[in-house]
Amino acid sequence: MQTPEGHTTTLFAEEALQLDGGASLSPVEVGYTTYGALNADASNAVFICHALTGDQFVASNHPITGKSGWWVRTVGPGKLIDTDKYFVVCSNVLGSCLGTTGPRSVNPATGKPWGLEFPVITIRDMVRVQAALLDRLGVEKLFMVIGGSMGGMQVLEWLTTYPERLHSAVAIATAARHTAQNIAFHEVGRQAVMADPNWKEGQYYGAAPNPDKGLAVARMTAHITYLSEDALTKKFGRNLQARDTVSFGFDADFQVESYLRHQGSTFVDRFDANSYLYITRAMDYLDISSRYSGRLADAFKAAAHVRCCIISFSSDWLYPTIENKTVAHAMNAAGVPVSFAEIESPHGHDAFLLESPEMDAMIGGFVGAAAKALGTSEATS
Amino acid sequence: MQTPEGHTTTLFAEEALQLDGGASLSPVEVGYTTYGALNADASNAVFICHALTGDQFVASNHPITGKSGWWVRTVGPGKLIDTDKYFVVCSNVLGSCLGTTGPRSVNPATGKPWGLEFPVITIRDMVRVQAALLDRLGVEKLFMVIGGSMGGMQVLEWLTTYPERLHSAVAIATAARHTAQNIAFHEVGRQAVMADPNWKEGQYYGAAPNPDKGLAVARMTAHITYLSEDALTKKFGRNLQARDTVSFGFDADFQVESYLRHQGSTFVDRFDANSYLYITRAMDYLDISSRYSGRLADAFKAAAHVRCCIISFSSDWLYPTIENKTVAHAMNAAGVPVSFAEIESPHGHDAFLLESPEMDAMIGGFVGAAAKALGTSEATS
Repeated sequence: MQTPEGHTTTLFAEEALQLDGGASLSPVEVGYTTYGALNADASNAVFICHALTGDQFVASNHPITGKSGWWVRTVGPGKLIDTDKYFVVCSNVLGSCLGTTGPRSVNPATGKPWGLEFPVITIRDMVRVQAALLDRLGVEKLFMVIGGSMGGMQVLEWLTTYPERLHSAVAIATAARHTAQNIAFHEVGRQAVMADPNWKEGQYYGAAPNPDKGLAVARMTAHITYLSEDALTKKFGRNLQARDTVSFGFDADFQVESYLRHQGSTFVDRFDANSYLYITRAMDYLDISSRYSGRLADAFKAAAHVRCCIISFSSDWLYPTIENKTVAHAMNAAGVPVSFAEIESPHGHDAFLLESPEMDAMIGGFVGAAAKALGTSEATS
Repeated sequence: MQTPEGHTTTLFAEEALQLDGGASLSPVEVGYTTYGALNADASNAVFICHALTGDQFVASNHPITGKSGWWVRTVGPGKLIDTDKYFVVCSNVLGSCLGTTGPRSVNPATGKPWGLEFPVITIRDMVRVQAALLDRLGVEKLFMVIGGSMGGMQVLEWLTTYPERLHSAVAIATAARHTAQNIAFHEVGRQAVMADPNWKEGQYYGAAPNPDKGLAVARMTAHITYLSEDALTKKFGRNLQARDTVSFGFDADFQVESYLRHQGSTFVDRFDANSYLYITRAMDYLDISSRYSGRLADAFKAAAHVRCCIISFSSDWLYPTIENKTVAHAMNAAGVPVSFAEIESPHGHDAFLLESPEMDAMIGGFVGAAAKALGTSEATS
């Protein structure tokens, strides 16, 4: 296990990264973590793709918040993704703000932070950087790529873009395109950021205050979509926050208000507002089938050798089962060996980050079978 | 039919309005419209309750936007609510901004706009003002009270507070309490308004710019909840706005973005940001059963003589069928004669404002039967 701070490396220093939007980027710094050791034939690497506001600190404490890694439940010695057996890599996505180049980084051409001059990126651009990082780490082929939510979108783009580098892939609570409702919620979040006068057209870096209020509102809106109506009711209902009766005022009378305000105010300490704009934009632009004349199955034709697993949650209304099932059906049609399961859960989209024995059983079984199919024992580090 | 400007009257000038929050208010201006004529025995009055951002201009052009009345489809000569037969009244709710006293009104004690000094109100407070208006208009008993969404909440409070003044009641796409998710979305909207530096703790009236950006974000967020995921997909999908390919920028590339921005920017021309805070708060505070030790049926016991009709829409996720059905079940348990129907619709919550032959048939049949039960012919004006 390395230090919580993780590592940083510089990629695309000689040959620039060519982006889907037509721009190019050079160099690209990448913040990443690794856990476990790469085995002799470099066949035990697992790449973990993080979600929108996630980061590379999968199983280490977050350097800003000090909180445990976001998937420490799943990743570690003896755990579901066993770092005694696998060499686990996770990197901060392109456009983010925790070590990887994004709008807060310095534009080498001007010597100033990029701000809105940073090129708009796509999920596939994020994956291109991940592939280059694996080159640097000496990993030609991944035993597995895995991720939930936006992480799952990256998994799908791995399958379309680098199928030859994959042995297996797990996409959880995700989609191959953003729907109108997905775009709508993201647009509200972006408008909330842009409405903050401290945003200053994205050039707020330096001494100026950050657009924290706008970013907090964006986070609050998004957070509602991460929980099911049922989960909100069970968790908070109409319970009051530290009072017996409503205040007949605009304080956070209800626990759910207090919770959302807390989510908003803590988020701004660890995230850059422009990164939020860029990453939500990348997600909105995702529509894999559009590159294949609307035939999603064609996207996965070159991945027929990759063992895939798709998992959805019954109460997830952000990336509902139907979107996940659409992916599984397309894989089936493309001859990709795919396991699909909808897991009953009351927790909404956030379920992918929470305790779920069914998900664990599904992933555990899948990892075991994939290892067996690779013809290696799992433990080879 | 009267002029589109409607009427205004002053109520509670001598005896102040006692509010649920403990404060009192005097006087209370009320903006209202009437259509048709009251008959000799004052037995043909219909009161229409409007929704959160609605107004009294049910069937007349809006004085600011110039648009047709919000329910002109339903209310008018020969229409479902036939103004040749019925004397229709609608008033701007307490706390709003189109003729009725609200936070933008002048506080008589200070000579300045109330702002956040305006007392927090409830749905029942709105209904108290409506009842006083009907006293002024010489209407002791309503043939019918009808409303959708927040209008339906007022209908339910009419039933709890003035059952003796009702012959029949229709509540559409509504609820007897706000859920955690309902509160959450409203809280995000309020935080968006309050995050706008032009809001100035509610004292933005006068020469200062209004908190338009914050209010627009609030409206955008709310608007998403008014449409079903399916409706957004059918209406917009991933269609682009006046372009062939995405811009790789932060313009409104997608039609759904353009639509939401338009909804936000036009809303601020006709609505006061503080009114938005107060009215959403009133809705969040709604929890009728809490006044009856959690037994909603007890709320309707005094209304056993009132013919009721509850209508929900299958794709409404803001006030879903289950919330409407809960009301109907409680009415049943209280011995209230109630008809309930869930109407199949892809339009989400907004369905109550749209063309719906099934809803029309339901309301039409209900009105006819209620008139018959009253022992009058419908046409008595």
